[in-house]
Amino acid sequence: MKISLVPTAADISRDVLTNKSAVMFDILRASSTVSTALANGCKEVIPVVEVDDAFALAKTLPENTFLLGGERGAVKVPGFHLGNSPLEYNVGTVGNKTVILTTTNGTQATRRAAEGSGQVFIGSLLNVSAVAKKLMEMEQDIVLVCAGTRGKFSLEDTLAAGMVARELVRLWQLKGQISPALTENLPINGEFYLDETPMVSGNGLVLEDAAVAALRLAEYYENNPLRALYDSLHGQKLAQIGLAADLAYCAQVDLFDVVPVYRDGKIGID
Amino acid sequence: MKISLVPTAADISRDVLTNKSAVMFDILRASSTVSTALANGCKEVIPVVEVDDAFALAKTLPENTFLLGGERGAVKVPGFHLGNSPLEYNVGTVGNKTVILTTTNGTQATRRAAEGSGQVFIGSLLNVSAVAKKLMEMEQDIVLVCAGTRGKFSLEDTLAAGMVARELVRLWQLKGQISPALTENLPINGEFYLDETPMVSGNGLVLEDAAVAALRLAEYYENNPLRALYDSLHGQKLAQIGLAADLAYCAQVDLFDVVPVYRDGKIGID
Repeated sequence: MKISLVPTAADISRDVLTNKSAVMFDILRASSTVSTALANGCKEVIPVVEVDDAFALAKTLPENTFLLGGERGAVKVPGFHLGNSPLEYNVGTVGNKTVILTTTNGTQATRRAAEGSGQVFIGSLLNVSAVAKKLMEMEQDIVLVCAGTRGKFSLEDTLAAGMVARELVRLWQLKGQISPALTENLPINGEFYLDETPMVSGNGLVLEDAAVAALRLAEYYENNPLRALYDSLHGQKLAQIGLAADLAYCAQVDLFDVVPVYRDGKIGID
Repeated sequence: MKISLVPTAADISRDVLTNKSAVMFDILRASSTVSTALANGCKEVIPVVEVDDAFALAKTLPENTFLLGGERGAVKVPGFHLGNSPLEYNVGTVGNKTVILTTTNGTQATRRAAEGSGQVFIGSLLNVSAVAKKLMEMEQDIVLVCAGTRGKFSLEDTLAAGMVARELVRLWQLKGQISPALTENLPINGEFYLDETPMVSGNGLVLEDAAVAALRLAEYYENNPLRALYDSLHGQKLAQIGLAADLAYCAQVDLFDVVPVYRDGKIGID
């Protein structure tokens, strides 16, 4: 099993994703909002790129069955029911509703990733373990897709991808395919193990350098993921406009056991 | 002062480098070899892209004044005096000689970076503090250019870039432009400090997320940089073909106080 990492949405290519399990991370805040909405009983999330698309779609749905959610420049779109703060997506608000969601970055990253792999899981700090478990079940090579911020590398998405990579290594060890004794003393890269250790499956776990770097970042921030969010430019900007509570919320690891999946234009629980 | 990071040679763009100080990292092994050669008394290093260029250039130089060095597929080029192992570039061998060097990756990254900024410093673990000091003296925005491996993100180059970023933050603090008390409790990102702290110069130190991530990796591997080299795919491949001694050598931090600089087609000590 090979784990790759795509650092920004712009780096997504169809080749890289074909026949692989893809996970999209846009943890401040689209991924966290989607996970929260679905964990809190929302029927489905329909991501759309443009605000106009959201209003047009809303007109086709029966009244009181849907909510319009999303942001532009981190602020709620005028005329929408909800912004992009996961804290707004509580049980009382989203239960049994369809959420039409448009966000600057995450929606486009999800759609681009889906062009290659057909379906895309949605990852965040809130569901690290659930996502990793699902990826192990898929038994395919894995691509961790970080949405990035304005086309650039983002620390917070990479952290979440690294936490998933780390959990995958742990689960792989539990399966007995890497001796835990070895991993304490040796590099985690599977190509190395391939020469050193008999593999149960005949295949090693191979992490690309970018995935290793993300995993090490996850270890660095292990005891304080919120610190990573404050280390990131996007996190700081959200804090500066009064959204520090969203940072604290999105920094919680494994709050939910849900794995949102984007398929055929909609996001539901897999 | 802004610190950016370019993750691979393919991501170098002229726009990003204009009027900035650029440092190129290809620590396994071109950057380390260049630093070692110059620290050991080599007159200058002339990097060329093709093996044929190296032989052609050699014909124009007086006998016994030059050495041909470099690799293809990590192996010494037939007919060359030296490979790409820094351990070969000792005082007795390279003293007062011109080295014509061709390496797969680093030469091209250096040339591409120079197209934008005119000159490029050469960074490695061997000269972290010297490079950081030089960058402070330049008083320009900084671009840390990682050569990468076969067009992809490389852990080892990012580690070295992160060590330089970390030293820059430390030097910046010493200048009194960031209160040390603040940096213990707050994110290191300068945009944040800009709002929180009066700056002596009126300008904050701004690290892009990619530079912050590299800095955090440097902190992660602080006590064992060699571990990072073994965590990297390229490092593992070198070890597998018998070049573990090169890894151990290249993992030494601040062995030299030299800052190689590429300018007008040649690398000398700045």
